[in-house]
Order: sequence, then structure tokens, then C-alpha cells
Amino acid sequence: MPHIPLPEGLPGITGGFAFRPETAAPMRRLAEVLLRGDSTLTSGEREMIATVVSARNACAFCRDSHRAAAAHHLDGNYRLVDAVRDDHQSAPISAKFKALLTIAGHVQQGGKQVTNDDVVQARAAGATDLEIHDTVLIAAAFCMFNRYVDGLAAWTPTDHDLYHRMGERMAVEGYVRPGT
Amino acid sequence: MPHIPLPEGLPGITGGFAFRPETAAPMRRLAEVLLRGDSTLTSGEREMIATVVSARNACAFCRDSHRAAAAHHLDGNYRLVDAVRDDHQSAPISAKFKALLTIAGHVQQGGKQVTNDDVVQARAAGATDLEIHDTVLIAAAFCMFNRYVDGLAAWTPTDHDLYHRMGERMAVEGYVRPGT
Repeated sequence: MPHIPLPEGLPGITGGFAFRPETAAPMRRLAEVLLRGDSTLTSGEREMIATVVSARNACAFCRDSHRAAAAHHLDGNYRLVDAVRDDHQSAPISAKFKALLTIAGHVQQGGKQVTNDDVVQARAAGATDLEIHDTVLIAAAFCMFNRYVDGLAAWTPTDHDLYHRMGERMAVEGYVRPGT
Repeated sequence: MPHIPLPEGLPGITGGFAFRPETAAPMRRLAEVLLRGDSTLTSGEREMIATVVSARNACAFCRDSHRAAAAHHLDGNYRLVDAVRDDHQSAPISAKFKALLTIAGHVQQGGKQVTNDDVVQARAAGATDLEIHDTVLIAAAFCMFNRYVDGLAAWTPTDHDLYHRMGERMAVEGYVRPGT
């Protein structure tokens, strides 16, 4: 039961978005730029950063919806997304992406947890300033989205198929809605 | 020294905003709606929520700039802002605002820390659904802003006068910049 009466039948953050369109519009825009805008990081990589941070914040709605969006960008490869979510150091991904995920994990704990060494490692593995910037901001933004969803006790479905379809829509149609 | 080369001379979050205008625009818009948009909470109250959350996240830049913005909205009453920041339960504020600050403090720890009892207390003290919603989202948003500033190791001035002037600009001119 949500803490405030959110519109019914809208899962997770979409209930809060419908309740307050004035704040939904910039939040949707921010997600769009960070996860689907021009970047040298793929949308699959960026959705995996969102998934990892949401998992660490124990936000099941964001974790499972962005997991599905990431998988859609990766030709349905849920196995890879789950490997990254559960332990990115042992996942079959590049050294650069591992280093960026370490930064994201530190941001989730608190901004000051990001060390100079984290950044040196990422740069040595080929990460650009913009990639480091966007990794920090994606992780920070999901610390907001996750708290928004769970701080309202928004409806969190448990049906895998629903997340699978939601992830496809997020990956294909994106986060901005007409008129917002 | 920031983790990435941010434009020089721009304090705190403004360095990140100048580095990446595409993400700055929705972040500025979100702050504007939440802190200065139409609301039954005063801007002074909303800036104090931002101050309390930033203090708990140990983000000195956001804490001290929003402290100054709050004080500007309150005719320069830094004493009240500091009392709220340091211990809102003993501060000379309404029962409703205390209950909302308790919710904000729980959001800072994590969305699931907000309890039904927190919300019952706020409602009993007269808080509306929209006030509860916005309190949750202000607290959540500052968990993003704080991590963005410190996750980039952005320049954090220590000059009180600089924060005082910055707070005045934030309170009077707001958060959105022309052309963004």
C-alpha cells in the first residue's frame, strides 16, 4: 500500500510520475539523457549501472525494470546483466566498464567514497572524463529514483513478464512522454 | 582537486552543470519546481529540508548553500536554520514540519526507512499528500545532488560570505538559467 494515494495500476515510479507531472517531466528528461542520449557508453552499459545501483539500494522495482531494459539492449542476454549485477569484478566485461562500476558502487555508498585511485584506474583502462562524469551522475540519480519509489512505498510488481515488457518499452520508446 | 577537469572558478554543483549542460537543464528544473514552485510548504521550509538532508550526507557545499538560501527566505534567520539542521525535534517549528523532516531524514537513510507511522504522524499534524510527496522527493533529490557534487570532488569553498551571496541568488533568482 503506497504511503499516499497514487493512481492505481501504475507500477513503481510511474505512479509518482502520474501524481506529480511537474516533477516527472525533468526526472524523465534526466533519465533519457543519461541512459539513452549520445554517449560512448552503450545504453546496455548505462542500464547495467542503473541496475547495479538499484540492486545495492534494494529497490526491486528499479532493479528489475532496468535489468530488463539492459537485457533488451543486449539481445536478451539476462545472464550477462545478472552476472554484472551480482559481482561485476568477475563478470565477462571490459576492464574499463569494471572500473566504472566500481565508481558507481562507491557513489551509491556516498559521494566521498569515490577515491582518486578509483578514477586513476578508470582512466588507465581508457575511460574518458565524460564517461566518468556520467557514471557518477547515473549512480547519483538512481540514489534519487530508488528513494523516490521506496520512500512512497510505490506498487512493486513481482511478475517477471511485466518487467520484461516494461524493459522493452524503456529501451525502445525511452523515458520521455509526449507533452511532458 | 576535482576528479575530472571541471571549469575553474565555479563552486560545487555549478562546475558539473557547466561541464554537462544536457544533464544540468533537467536537474536545475527539478530543483526549481521542488524548492521554488507552487507549494503549501514555504521555500524556507523546503530549503531547510535540503539543508538537513545535505548535512546528513556530509555534503558541505549543498548544506551551506541551501542553508544560506533558507536563511534568505527567513529574513536572515540563520539561527533557526541551524537549529533545524542540528536537531529538528527540539527546534521552534510546527509539529507538521517536524514530522516532515523525520520523513526526509528516513529517506536520506534509504527509501524503505520511511514507515507507515512516519506518514500517520505527518498526516495527523496536518500534512497533505502533496506535502508528503514533495518532502520524499526533495530528500531523494538531494541524495542525488549531494552524491553528484562529492562524487566529482567538486570545488567546495569555505568562505561564509560567498555562501551568503550564493544563497541570496538561489532564493531570489532561482535555479533555472536562461537558455537551459
